[in-house]
Parts: sequence; structure tokens; C-alpha cells
Amino acid sequence: MSKKVLTRLRKGEDLVAELTRVARENNITRGTVQVIGALEKAELGYYNQKTFEYQAHPVDKNVELLAGMGNISLKDGEIFVHLHLTLSDETGAALGGHAMEGCIIFAAEAFLREVKGAPLNRVFDDPTKLFLWG
Amino acid sequence: MSKKVLTRLRKGEDLVAELTRVARENNITRGTVQVIGALEKAELGYYNQKTFEYQAHPVDKNVELLAGMGNISLKDGEIFVHLHLTLSDETGAALGGHAMEGCIIFAAEAFLREVKGAPLNRVFDDPTKLFLWG
Amino acid sequence: MSKKVLTRLRKGEDLVAELTRVARENNITRGTVQVIGALEKAELGYYNQKTFEYQAHPVDKNVELLAGMGNISLKDGEIFVHLHLTLSDETGAALGGHAMEGCIIFAAEAFLREVKGAPLNRVFDDPTKLFLWG
Repeated sequence: MSKKVLTRLRKGEDLVAELTRVARENNITRGTVQVIGALEKAELGYYNQKTFEYQAHPVDKNVELLAGMGNISLKDGEIFVHLHLTLSDETGAALGGHAMEGCIIFAAEAFLREVKGAPLNRVFDDPTKLFLWG
Repeated sequence: MSKKVLTRLRKGEDLVAELTRVARENNITRGTVQVIGALEKAELGYYNQKTFEYQAHPVDKNVELLAGMGNISLKDGEIFVHLHLTLSDETGAALGGHAMEGCIIFAAEAFLREVKGAPLNRVFDDPTKLFLWG
Repeated sequence: MSKKVLTRLRKGEDLVAELTRVARENNITRGTVQVIGALEKAELGYYNQKTFEYQAHPVDKNVELLAGMGNISLKDGEIFVHLHLTLSDETGAALGGHAMEGCIIFAAEAFLREVKGAPLNRVFDDPTKLFLWG
């Protein structure tokens, strides 16, 4: 039976850290994650495909968390959550990017689901300079 | 065996009401929901984290429904669907928010999935003034 | 046991074609799909609900793939992937639409899941002029 967790995350905590904590507590090393709610602020990344660097976009305002979609795998033997976020501001406009450290939870409802199979390890991928599944 | 429903929703109906109907008909009291399609119009909410009130954003145009992500739990003993929407307009720009009453379906394809576990009840949460899982 | 596939897609390939290939290789004829990553460029569709035609929006820039949400069913007896995309550009602004041919993968991590049940066939739907589940 694959593990499935539907749970509330804690206000004031970092979103990716919280999801990683829940994955670790349930020992989910391979799976998917989805989350909705609201954030006090966010830190989004845009990966520049030419310079191979993440450009950071701080979002210093309260936002709705429309869709957090991501997955769980292993990096350096540790549980690693990769999450992309779609947000909206008080005008209703949507923004988004790769979830970096600094996305602070106002309220969040998450679903984590184990997907059974051979371990998925992130290894350096030369064409993209990212750590992808080998 | 957890229940899983992949189904088309009805044109002209309210999106959240339709998802709630399908959840009720299948007696899914705890789970997740996702939906794509198009809406004739929408009504989006932005939760103001300072005044603790939803600000309504009517969207009086036809939009693509890029991603409806949400969950199913209980509120006052009744099946309750919490759904966030990402939409796009004819320029391709994205917008979104909390799905309120008034999101009218043009076409919609939904997936509802039961997640087994102890009942999830929404109760008033003082720090956020929202009804969250206790 | 329903089939579940968590996998990396190939750089430089067409996103919908890649997802269709994975669905075919695993013989998933009914299910859901979700994907995150980055695209070298994209081709988005907006369905005009009055003229009943897709308007194409070419996105000639590198974008984050925030949320690809969709489903798998049958059209003319063949496995067919219906996918909606939410993207963001280097300013963090979000855009999106129906995924058309021409969404080129930079990096992509996908989850495909079979949902058991009676075959879902797309048939012409007169009110919307779309091919929907009959």
C-alpha cells in the first residue's frame, strides 16, 4: 500500500522545509506533492537556461497559493522536495516560479503520495546543469 | 480500495457545486480534487491576511481553466470542497484565486480521489480566522 | 493495481508527444498526468467560446513550467493526452493555456497515473464543438 498524507502545514514555517519534514516523518522517498493555501511572502526562482543560474524573485506581499506541484526523490541520499508554485496577488494576477527557501506559510493544505519503484536519485545533468533523475 | 472518479462536469453549472455533487454522490469525505477545462466566467477570492476577509474578483470573461487544485473534507459534518483556480484569458495572461460561487463551467474534466484516514474536519482557526483542519 | 509512472522526460522533445509516448509505453488509456520543469518555448491555445476555435499563443522564450495538469483518455481509439499549462517567464509573471504541439522540453518531471474504469472516449460535443467524454 502506498503511503498517502493529507495534512495541514504550520503557519509561519517555510513551505519547502515543512513539506520535506512531512515526507521525512512518513519516510516517503519517491512520490508527488501538491499544496494549496496562502503565503505571507514568497521567494521564487527562474532558471536561466543560457547562464544556467537561478534568478531569484522575492515576492514581498501576501499571496494566494493557487497550485504547488512537485515531487519527492533523493539527492545525496536525502529526501528532496522539488516544488513549483503558482501564486496570485490581491489584483488576481498570477505569478510563479521554482519554490526557494523563504516561502512562508500563512495557511497550507498539502497532499503527499508515495509512488513505489526503484529509487529516484538526483544527479548532475551536464546539458542543463541541473540535478535531474539519472 | 480508495475511490477514484475521472469525469466530465456539466456545462452551465457552478464549478464548486458540481465538484461537491460528485464528491457527495461517491461519498468521498476526505480526498483531493483536480480539474482542467474552460469557464464561461469566474469569481475569484483573495484572502486579505490583515483584515481576514475575502476580497472578490469577478472575472467577466471566458477563460481557460489551467489548473483547479483542491481537497475534500468535512465542514459542519458536510462534504466540503476547497478549490484554488489558475485561469488564463485570451491574451494568455494567467490569473487566479480561491474558487467562489459563480465559476460557471464551459467544459471541465475532473479527477476526485479519496484519501483514507481519520475524518478531516474544518474548525475555526483563530490566528488566520479561517476554517482549517483541526 | 493501477499503474503509476514518475519519470523524467527528454530534453528537446515535444511535451505532449513525450507524455503520450510514456502513456502508450505503459498502456495507460485512462488516467491523469501532472508535470513540472522548464520549457525552451511553448505554444499555448485559448479556446474562443464564441467562434469555437483555438487561438494560438506562441511563447518564444524560455519559461518555467509551473504546473502541467491533464488527463489521459481515448480519441479515435488512440491514447490521447489533454494537458493545460501554467508557465512563468523571467519576470515571474504567469501565463498559460491549452498545451499545443510545439512545447519544447528543457527539463521535465512527470507523473502519470492510471485510473481504472470503463473506457473514456472523446466524442464530438455539439454545444462546445469540442471532443469531450461521451
